[in-house]
Amino acid sequence: MANDKTPVAKAARRPRAETPRGFRDYFGAEVTARKAMLDKIAEVYHRYGFDPLETSAVETVEALGKFLPDVDRPNEGVFGWQDEDADWLALRYDLTAPLARVAAQYRNDLPSPYRRYAMGPVWRNEKPGPGRFRQFYQCDADTVGSGSVAADAEICAMLSDALEIVGIPRGDYVVKVNNRKVLNGVMEVAGLAGDDKEAERGIVLRAIDKIDRLGDEGVRALLGAGRKDESGDFTKGAGLSDAQANVVMGFVSANKAVTARLSNEQDVALAAGDTVLSTILGYAAAIGIPGIERKERGNIPAESFRLRNHKTIEHLLSIVDQSVAGREGALELAEIARLLESQGYFADRIRIDPSVVRGLGYYTGPVYEAELTFNIVDEKGYTRNFGSVAGGGRYDDLVKRFTGQAVPATGVSIGVDRLLAALSAKGRMAADTAGPVVVTVMDRDRMADYMAMVGELRQAGIRAEVYLGNPKQFGNQLKYADKRQSPIAVIQGGDEALTDEVILKDLILGSKIAESATLEEWKGRPAQVKVKREDLVERVKAMLEDQKAMRDAKPLSEWL
Amino acid sequence: MANDKTPVAKAARRPRAETPRGFRDYFGAEVTARKAMLDKIAEVYHRYGFDPLETSAVETVEALGKFLPDVDRPNEGVFGWQDEDADWLALRYDLTAPLARVAAQYRNDLPSPYRRYAMGPVWRNEKPGPGRFRQFYQCDADTVGSGSVAADAEICAMLSDALEIVGIPRGDYVVKVNNRKVLNGVMEVAGLAGDDKEAERGIVLRAIDKIDRLGDEGVRALLGAGRKDESGDFTKGAGLSDAQANVVMGFVSANKAVTARLSNEQDVALAAGDTVLSTILGYAAAIGIPGIERKERGNIPAESFRLRNHKTIEHLLSIVDQSVAGREGALELAEIARLLESQGYFADRIRIDPSVVRGLGYYTGPVYEAELTFNIVDEKGYTRNFGSVAGGGRYDDLVKRFTGQAVPATGVSIGVDRLLAALSAKGRMAADTAGPVVVTVMDRDRMADYMAMVGELRQAGIRAEVYLGNPKQFGNQLKYADKRQSPIAVIQGGDEALTDEVILKDLILGSKIAESATLEEWKGRPAQVKVKREDLVERVKAMLEDQKAMRDAKPLSEWL
Repeated sequence: MANDKTPVAKAARRPRAETPRGFRDYFGAEVTARKAMLDKIAEVYHRYGFDPLETSAVETVEALGKFLPDVDRPNEGVFGWQDEDADWLALRYDLTAPLARVAAQYRNDLPSPYRRYAMGPVWRNEKPGPGRFRQFYQCDADTVGSGSVAADAEICAMLSDALEIVGIPRGDYVVKVNNRKVLNGVMEVAGLAGDDKEAERGIVLRAIDKIDRLGDEGVRALLGAGRKDESGDFTKGAGLSDAQANVVMGFVSANKAVTARLSNEQDVALAAGDTVLSTILGYAAAIGIPGIERKERGNIPAESFRLRNHKTIEHLLSIVDQSVAGREGALELAEIARLLESQGYFADRIRIDPSVVRGLGYYTGPVYEAELTFNIVDEKGYTRNFGSVAGGGRYDDLVKRFTGQAVPATGVSIGVDRLLAALSAKGRMAADTAGPVVVTVMDRDRMADYMAMVGELRQAGIRAEVYLGNPKQFGNQLKYADKRQSPIAVIQGGDEALTDEVILKDLILGSKIAESATLEEWKGRPAQVKVKREDLVERVKAMLEDQKAMRDAKPLSEWL
Repeated sequence: MANDKTPVAKAARRPRAETPRGFRDYFGAEVTARKAMLDKIAEVYHRYGFDPLETSAVETVEALGKFLPDVDRPNEGVFGWQDEDADWLALRYDLTAPLARVAAQYRNDLPSPYRRYAMGPVWRNEKPGPGRFRQFYQCDADTVGSGSVAADAEICAMLSDALEIVGIPRGDYVVKVNNRKVLNGVMEVAGLAGDDKEAERGIVLRAIDKIDRLGDEGVRALLGAGRKDESGDFTKGAGLSDAQANVVMGFVSANKAVTARLSNEQDVALAAGDTVLSTILGYAAAIGIPGIERKERGNIPAESFRLRNHKTIEHLLSIVDQSVAGREGALELAEIARLLESQGYFADRIRIDPSVVRGLGYYTGPVYEAELTFNIVDEKGYTRNFGSVAGGGRYDDLVKRFTGQAVPATGVSIGVDRLLAALSAKGRMAADTAGPVVVTVMDRDRMADYMAMVGELRQAGIRAEVYLGNPKQFGNQLKYADKRQSPIAVIQGGDEALTDEVILKDLILGSKIAESATLEEWKGRPAQVKVKREDLVERVKAMLEDQKAMRDAKPLSEWL
């Protein structure tokens, strides 16, 4: 221990074999399933031109700063310590803070804009809870150095592609997009704009964020005097007047209003959509929002046009009409929707949605969140939407901390464990759980023969092991093979050795027969065969293929 | 910052954008090359029946203990801090200590023997130096719960396969195997066995470890009074008598002795080899070393038998004949050699070699080390062997710390950065450095059109980007494409838009032409073509294929 203050363990008692509180281990298929998922996501990020970046786990506290997106959680913090040369170091709490440091440190060498992705663990020094760990994976993609909303649109499209490639079917997710400028506009219109109103704005944003859970009534209570929940706990409200609350509620319920006005949410003709979009963009040109005036060219394919996003933006514009920031935000959303349409992404995949808030500080423009829309039964037995698996947005001030120069940036972070849980819930986990062929040891003196067998199998690309435990109890070897989910046990006793043969025991068929042990006709089928030693590899291969065919076909019970 | 003692940065000045001392960032191809290499190694580990395990970066100091294999380095230490609930936590310094904790914690659930592999960063709180970082990758495979030397033999075979699969050709590496018991036997025979001789043994082991660098004379000096190196620094010796030193030197120079006695190192007939092995194993049976007596069955293929390992073991036996531990160690090596031969691994790939020491504490039986035998020119301009890239051995006491019960274990750790450097030196790096097709922005108002183009390219599986920086200076866009190593720029100005065309600029051919700018005939060739907008994807694909064909064929200069 180089740190003088760290006690050297003079263990009178034995050390405890335990993970530290809030940490966990991942075994076998848990590791391979996550890796398979991240590999697929990386494939999409790569295709979009993003380059990988791997920073170290350790940063100076100075460089990390305190920019956690979710500052309204208790005990938020990092794991930090003082280095020998007096620097304070800490484990990164996300992948964005290190990116900001890198963007500043290498600003003369990196391409600009810089598209990068990063995958790896982050650490939070918070109270662990059920399913809540102090180390977890994040999977981020960010574009640094572009102020164009085209960068935000691109990230949303990429997020949509990433969800589909890992196995979330279209229709089972939606990427929701909002804009902090619109939220600011709503605050302005509701008379909550001043520096002295920061506390109220915080309460309002947190209330909006809870619309899915609390419903209109709950949110309205939080905007006013406050709300008592089922357990009796009281949450203080923002103390808005009815008129103020009406503005916010009009904004929050935009989704419902738009849904009510759309007769057919999914498919509306091009003409209608074009009219709305032209109106919005014409409006933008008229009021002269810089960088937003666009000419509509109408080359969007008619067959898949969807009106919903345009209607939502129209609705938002009507609410924030009195706020310059609000108008700019709504028109940015219009531009994002148009750019996505040009690539074939409509409201069924990427939806303009005013309910997205994404934390309090940090974000400065478009914010987005991927929500899985299929139902699961939660730990309390309630059926509910699976919910959010990814989120992000535009954060233009992070690099400025270092350089003094504003560097616009936008990016997304996928919650790796949440998405894995979703894939597991949908039965889409690509886990490779194939156990190895186990070569058993009948005669300890002939270990070289067994090693030769396992060597041949491996050379042929077959996953295989020789049993390395104490071979005396043969039953233990079969128990071991069972624990390893082994498909085949290879057995060669003295008799087989003399005749140059081996026994192949089909452990899959064997376990199937055990399941249906009452069925006499199955008991008669051979779960093991004796083959020539020289045919070992060929016959193991054939048996594995038979097993695969059986797995891919209907279950055994249906054969009977 | 949850830790009260951590200062909150009240930055009057701007934070420095710097990695902490001794840490670094990995960009683009650095990340993908390492990932490609680790993926291939994982494939081998998987085929051998090893399961992945991912433990968290953080362990309790109590669980970690202090079992660094290289304890004779200065400033050795870990990064540690005190948790809120008073536990001392630390970053893992290797992947073996966490494995020992896992093996103890889950001993009732894991298969036994438990074969596991692990890949990931580890952290060392040591003085950073050139090319020496405080976070680096390890890639380990271990078998816990098997006392059989078959487990050691298997790891050596797997290491050999892993090196070949990543691109180190057979003949460019050798896995050297020794046994700590043989080293102990040599100490015993040399009269260095007692508890009071620990310091001398340490000096002797370190001297043996340096045989490649110091040669016989240097080692002999260190065994005696001591050695003065070129810089004039004096290293105190072990103070052995000539007789004692002769024993050690006889052991150290076993390689040379064996080489001298073998007329043809690579190919010697089966008969000769069998005779030697039978002698050794007959000897083992005669003296009754438990678990070593084996009958030889002679089913080793004659055509590839190699005598070297047997001769080395014979030589070792002659030296440690007076020590029980020494004899047991030599006979374990004989068994390892025989098991490897049964799988076709001979001394050209896996060599019994008495010069391998592998640290001081920790290891209890067979030790092994993979050395790359091709030459490189080092940073000082000297030509030398590339050297060690992996090492490991048997460590039977690590799990016992937790449970009180001895659990035999053996395993290897691959130095990921070293092996990557070797692949780079051999030009075997599988880095995917293909830059994206860049769709340039000639008219900011038509961003939707450019997004549509890039969307189509990506849908076709082509890595592509739209330029997201300020599009005003077109030169900047081409500079950007150059920095991105882009193969093709797509350009559509107003004229092309009117005729529904796009320009494809071949940036590879363009740069080739720039290289050969004096050649008039090359200047005339079109580095850009105008194509119909609807043919964009097809024509980009064709151009990428042409470029690939050109890359795979002879260089352009040879065409002329």
